[in-house]
Amino acid sequence: MLFYTPNIAHNQELPAEESVHALRVLRLKNGDKVQLIDGKGGFYEAKLILEGKKCLLNIFSEKKNDKRSNIYTHLAIAPTKNIDRIEFMLEKCVEIGIDEVSFLNCRYSERKNIKLERLEKVAIQAMKQSLKTFLPKINEMVDFDKFLLRQNTENQLFIAHLEATERKLFSKEVYQLFLENNTTNQQNNASNPSFCMLIGAEGDFSTQEIEQAKQKNYLPVSLGESRLRTETAGIFVCQTIEIIKQLF
Amino acid sequence: MLFYTPNIAHNQELPAEESVHALRVLRLKNGDKVQLIDGKGGFYEAKLILEGKKCLLNIFSEKKNDKRSNIYTHLAIAPTKNIDRIEFMLEKCVEIGIDEVSFLNCRYSERKNIKLERLEKVAIQAMKQSLKTFLPKINEMVDFDKFLLRQNTENQLFIAHLEATERKLFSKEVYQLFLENNTTNQQNNASNPSFCMLIGAEGDFSTQEIEQAKQKNYLPVSLGESRLRTETAGIFVCQTIEIIKQLF
Repeated sequence: MLFYTPNIAHNQELPAEESVHALRVLRLKNGDKVQLIDGKGGFYEAKLILEGKKCLLNIFSEKKNDKRSNIYTHLAIAPTKNIDRIEFMLEKCVEIGIDEVSFLNCRYSERKNIKLERLEKVAIQAMKQSLKTFLPKINEMVDFDKFLLRQNTENQLFIAHLEATERKLFSKEVYQLFLENNTTNQQNNASNPSFCMLIGAEGDFSTQEIEQAKQKNYLPVSLGESRLRTETAGIFVCQTIEIIKQLF
Repeated sequence: MLFYTPNIAHNQELPAEESVHALRVLRLKNGDKVQLIDGKGGFYEAKLILEGKKCLLNIFSEKKNDKRSNIYTHLAIAPTKNIDRIEFMLEKCVEIGIDEVSFLNCRYSERKNIKLERLEKVAIQAMKQSLKTFLPKINEMVDFDKFLLRQNTENQLFIAHLEATERKLFSKEVYQLFLENNTTNQQNNASNPSFCMLIGAEGDFSTQEIEQAKQKNYLPVSLGESRLRTETAGIFVCQTIEIIKQLF
């Protein structure tokens, strides 16, 4: 019985929605043991104290996971027309491990808006299901140009596109980065790679968008020979980083 | 305008369903150019000749892709209760590249049947979408014990499970295989790796099933630290093989 309690540090009570689930669906009783995650690395065990419709929490164990992972993965993607596909992708990315997701409004985007709240719910559900302790940051949709103007916190920037111009193979680039990082880290504790990856709409990025990204130091990459759907590309990128991390 | 014509070698005509799509949805006309794939490596270009409700095909170009890929990937998986999840997985696996899919009826399976025809449609759609020329073989659901008794054509057998017993990391095993294969191939043209991967239901394989598989030379593996859903594990396995192949 795992519940999401983002404010557990300040308010030792199940949030309204989780409370309804606990009482009406799971029919939990006074004194039942529950597990809690705050999406910020905290994992708690508590006993329920029922007061009317409120589920108060008597915490008896607490573990704090201070570090997310030593890798940071930020996916910036143009959402698909059919939002189910993006929801499925988000679920898969959370299961595998992702830190931040942004949604881009691009030249060939077929979808100009997202429902952030709905996507956050999908992410929370996936986090609970896969027993992750960190909830990824999910950002509001933003125009492609504006996204490029933000202050990058990531040190490795990539744009995946399909134009037949020179592109490195993403998997090989990631492998090379981990290889270098592994060698450097043994010498002087250098910083770990953090990734920001741009993925376009079904109609790909425009030539102009690719140019703009290159000027902002995004490296153009290919994901391989297969023609992947947008959401498949999103999953593929996340899994590439995870799989190559596993090799080191 | 890409159509699936599995019998094109014998019958130069669009199959009934594709014909309806061509005439009613796409409103193609006599003489229009179309592209055809047969799911067996053939890629054709033809002109339409309309005869009543029939769409005859006048082929003017033909390419044959004789070899699938030098790697063979066979995924044998217990289908999820919610079949949408398996359909989505199948779509993603076809996009990335897969040769054969089997469905297992396991001790903890929550789903005891599949609709083969429906899954084949999903695979055909994904093949067309991702411009693959080979359609994967999709097998009828079979009991886990019976699957283990079949004659393996693959040379690398794995079972992914979650029991806290000794397991190798799948990604590292695949990397090692490609590494060895790469060295051997340069010497004497050895055969390429072919994979058969068993993935259990949401409730994992039973201890007995894991033992049975081990006796049949399936190597127990872990997919990493994340707890993945069944369908995510299926996608993950496919992508692991593809990503590591890209590194060589």
